[in-house]
Amino acid sequence: MTELASLQNHQIRLAARPVGMTKRDNWQFTTEAVGEPVEGGVLVKTLCLSLDPAMRGWMNEGKSYIAPVEIGEVMRAGGIGKVVASNDARFAPGDLVTGGLGVQEYRQFTPMEIKRQGISRIDLRMGSITQWLNVLGMPGMTGYFGLMDVGQPKEGDVVVVSGASGAVGQTVGQLAKIKGCRVVGIAGGKAKCDFVVNELGFDACIDYKNEDVRAGLKEHCPEGIDIYFDNVGGEILDHVLARLRRKARIIICGAISQYNATTAVQGPKNYLSLLVNRARMEGIVVFDYADRYPVAIAELAGYLKDGRLKSREDVVLGLDTFPESLVKLFTGENFGKLVLQVSAE
Amino acid sequence: MTELASLQNHQIRLAARPVGMTKRDNWQFTTEAVGEPVEGGVLVKTLCLSLDPAMRGWMNEGKSYIAPVEIGEVMRAGGIGKVVASNDARFAPGDLVTGGLGVQEYRQFTPMEIKRQGISRIDLRMGSITQWLNVLGMPGMTGYFGLMDVGQPKEGDVVVVSGASGAVGQTVGQLAKIKGCRVVGIAGGKAKCDFVVNELGFDACIDYKNEDVRAGLKEHCPEGIDIYFDNVGGEILDHVLARLRRKARIIICGAISQYNATTAVQGPKNYLSLLVNRARMEGIVVFDYADRYPVAIAELAGYLKDGRLKSREDVVLGLDTFPESLVKLFTGENFGKLVLQVSAE
Repeated sequence: MTELASLQNHQIRLAARPVGMTKRDNWQFTTEAVGEPVEGGVLVKTLCLSLDPAMRGWMNEGKSYIAPVEIGEVMRAGGIGKVVASNDARFAPGDLVTGGLGVQEYRQFTPMEIKRQGISRIDLRMGSITQWLNVLGMPGMTGYFGLMDVGQPKEGDVVVVSGASGAVGQTVGQLAKIKGCRVVGIAGGKAKCDFVVNELGFDACIDYKNEDVRAGLKEHCPEGIDIYFDNVGGEILDHVLARLRRKARIIICGAISQYNATTAVQGPKNYLSLLVNRARMEGIVVFDYADRYPVAIAELAGYLKDGRLKSREDVVLGLDTFPESLVKLFTGENFGKLVLQVSAE
Repeated sequence: MTELASLQNHQIRLAARPVGMTKRDNWQFTTEAVGEPVEGGVLVKTLCLSLDPAMRGWMNEGKSYIAPVEIGEVMRAGGIGKVVASNDARFAPGDLVTGGLGVQEYRQFTPMEIKRQGISRIDLRMGSITQWLNVLGMPGMTGYFGLMDVGQPKEGDVVVVSGASGAVGQTVGQLAKIKGCRVVGIAGGKAKCDFVVNELGFDACIDYKNEDVRAGLKEHCPEGIDIYFDNVGGEILDHVLARLRRKARIIICGAISQYNATTAVQGPKNYLSLLVNRARMEGIVVFDYADRYPVAIAELAGYLKDGRLKSREDVVLGLDTFPESLVKLFTGENFGKLVLQVSAE
């Protein structure tokens, strides 16, 4: 392992908390020597990182479902990497693993970190590297447990999904179809809507950038909505609230329309529809389901294998593009799960 | 029954849908002859009517959990009455019954109406006439099923109730205490807060008219809130959302602060706290639990008897005062469950 001494680790750290949309100024670029793993430790080289809307929240100060990233800290990110050196018998050089690698080229894991945050081997027979960041990764787990545990779909339910072509939306919509629901997506632009209907098999998709969402929901959900999986918040949530069916379930997964707002979040003014319809709005944080990930991964990998589940990833190249690549999530420029490839091998 | 022919029935009908706060102009006062009950029918004389915030919603046009009262129709109201004449063997003159009497002195029930909407005998050994409109009536049922079924209280839970001295709030808070919770009320004015703490046994009460609710919640719920039973909506809902504990439950029972708004309802801008805290916000409509009312009434009557449950009613006199009496609910002038006594016997 003597060559490790000469390796450099390029890292991206949080330099300043953003106001409104994140920009390059919020980041600091550092370089450190990699070095050897500690006793019982593992050194992982980053191949791909998952870029997620949740990252914007981690950049803010204050209490949330997870501690904020501190100023000066390497930006938090999940990813897939390759074990380069290992002092832990469970991991060998060359193993592919998933874990919290951070926005950097290498990460050293101590035994305690391996135990606490976990790195785990991935199996490429179940899905590709990018699929392990998508349907078999956090977005897939979020969609799976949000839909199944919080949404509790029944055959024939009308399910609406916003961010339909995005990472979580893909899984939610296709899984709801597999479970016998009627599925209506909401996405931005004709290309995404066509993809969602023609490739992923949704029953319909509303283009919120060019269509009237309210009219679209009325057309495609004439008898109302049983389940709404919300990734976006804002006005679309209000339009859905106005069309709930009795005992409807709204899964609050995110509110990407609000994450860069510099004014107060827009509260759903139609929330009293919950009362009228005896409906429920409930938040989900995927980490709560960690002990059941293997079950969900096995089920979803089975659907990938038999062709009932498809996935689309949007791969951008190069650690240095991270600041601009992240912004794509909020402008909607990405098409499919956004993955940052840091190294091809 | 010949004297029935000479009886006059004074009625209050909806004359015009209100904009903002209801006023006397919204009502029309009519008089009709009472007459004999039809074959199989029952004639009931109104003793007391329940005045409820929900009435404001029934005056609006449009779809809700129940059809609106039509222009020209006698205003809908639940009440306690005395059977005056009966062609139904199950009811005898002198029987006290509860049912949808409407804002009028007498109501004729046809056999179909008896079957569909129901009148049922009340037992004064279980509670007084006014208690049958309070803890043993719709408000009590709403509080019972909202807290127990939607809220699912566990011993040690921190429960916050708005409208704490009102009809629903009384039941919710005292029942939560009985179930072993710590209970914090929110009410308007020192007298109501003192009553809630000293008479009803809540652990604390915040006077929203004279205190900072946010600071009060911080003081009395230092570790957060498990259950919020919301009767008021508006800013208080936002303050509570900001202090939720993990897996918290918010029962949306009403939003009295918003019922007379002429602008859009104020949506809860802190709703993303549901996500962060994996919390749930769910609406309740009491009618859904009709088949379980007898069980709840028996339980609550038991608590009344053993002194663990107290009730306070605010009785106003005279059918003609209905327009102004109803407004008291929205200004907070009532102290306890508001009951309109139409006739003493």
